[in-house]
Amino acid sequence: MNLALDLGNTRAKAVFFDNDTEVAEYVYDKFTLDDCKALLRKHDTEAAILCAVTAFDEALPRFLRDNTRFFMQLAADTPQPLEIDYGTPQTLGADRLAAATAAACIKPGRNILVIDAGTALTFDLVTADGRFAGGNISPGARLRFKALNAFTGKLPLLSLEECSGGLGKSTKEAILNGVVQGIVSEIGHYAESLSAEYEDLLVFLTGGDCFYFAKKLKIPIFVVPNLLSQGLNRILKYNLCRKSAL
Amino acid sequence: MNLALDLGNTRAKAVFFDNDTEVAEYVYDKFTLDDCKALLRKHDTEAAILCAVTAFDEALPRFLRDNTRFFMQLAADTPQPLEIDYGTPQTLGADRLAAATAAACIKPGRNILVIDAGTALTFDLVTADGRFAGGNISPGARLRFKALNAFTGKLPLLSLEECSGGLGKSTKEAILNGVVQGIVSEIGHYAESLSAEYEDLLVFLTGGDCFYFAKKLKIPIFVVPNLLSQGLNRILKYNLCRKSAL
Repeated sequence: MNLALDLGNTRAKAVFFDNDTEVAEYVYDKFTLDDCKALLRKHDTEAAILCAVTAFDEALPRFLRDNTRFFMQLAADTPQPLEIDYGTPQTLGADRLAAATAAACIKPGRNILVIDAGTALTFDLVTADGRFAGGNISPGARLRFKALNAFTGKLPLLSLEECSGGLGKSTKEAILNGVVQGIVSEIGHYAESLSAEYEDLLVFLTGGDCFYFAKKLKIPIFVVPNLLSQGLNRILKYNLCRKSAL
Repeated sequence: MNLALDLGNTRAKAVFFDNDTEVAEYVYDKFTLDDCKALLRKHDTEAAILCAVTAFDEALPRFLRDNTRFFMQLAADTPQPLEIDYGTPQTLGADRLAAATAAACIKPGRNILVIDAGTALTFDLVTADGRFAGGNISPGARLRFKALNAFTGKLPLLSLEECSGGLGKSTKEAILNGVVQGIVSEIGHYAESLSAEYEDLLVFLTGGDCFYFAKKLKIPIFVVPNLLSQGLNRILKYNLCRKSAL
């Protein structure tokens, strides 16, 4: 079994794969070494990959290295199947790269826009020839709500829930509609402008808020909540292959 | 001379009006009682209006009340020329109301979308019959940059500057393009969807970032940086008239 461990800004996710099939998924607010030990007691784990966009306990990678046959941590210089056309690959988020890799593996030979609606809202382009061609970052829904509360004098802290659409008639409605319509129009903008530039563009949507926004979009999209974990598993398998070929 | 004093989330602005003409403008990172005393020594001030969306020193309104012939603080129940169609008028930001009032005075009898690109990014609708018909709130550019830095593990703090457009090839470009394109597409969305619903809609753009975004928009807009101060002056004059008529 392969373990794909994603330490994100908001939560951690551990997904076990049997070849390309997800067999178990665990989500944590905070992931500890004890959690990791418990996972490896429960699942016979041959190989593991770690992807972190936030700080973590150095004991974690040590434990995984010592207790699996193959362990790797995703970094800027990790061999992986996509060609990276990015000026500063060392600062390209491992999470963005993994999600893009998964999308390119699921639909090879296609131009793909990968949208991750999580803590950050990211838009990344993979071209039909397997090139990570760049992307943009803006705040996700939770960050927008937090910013309006934390950095202004009087606005309340809200979270994502169903909204009326249109214009708000109360502060709560105004913020909820404002944040949701902002994100929906932003997604629509990228889908439209990149579709005009890249032939037969496919749009993938992932991230914690993917189902919420998928319902509000009027464009055809593939919703894949575990795209990042799937990408980690693909990169892990790619590196296992390389290792056995050396 | 009338003084319109706006205590915003990011800065304070004091504008002096001779009837409807701006004669002096002062901007402060933090506005103190001493600043206020200095202003009144410099300008012969008959009346003053205070609008605050953030906490302030209670000595300020006391000083203005004691040292002008007429002083008022803009609140939810302040008499003002627009009819307010809002479920919770007591939480409708005084800044939003003042900007909407100014736009309605500048272009009476028209449907108007008032966009304030400041700390928050607000979209408010005034209808041709002089009704404040609601609006939405989302984070402005500075809040988006701050949120990406403060609430994620690894992203740098950026600020508004010229950007390449398109997709970023570095983290800096990705964030700058992401925040700017997000706001531009959000503004475009409201202008387009409300134009379809409200005949001959006019779009006003104000707030600290109004010139930056005005250049990037492909729609006709009125850019009025001091719209809020103009609105405060209009509301002040309206209340002076009411008082003299009583």
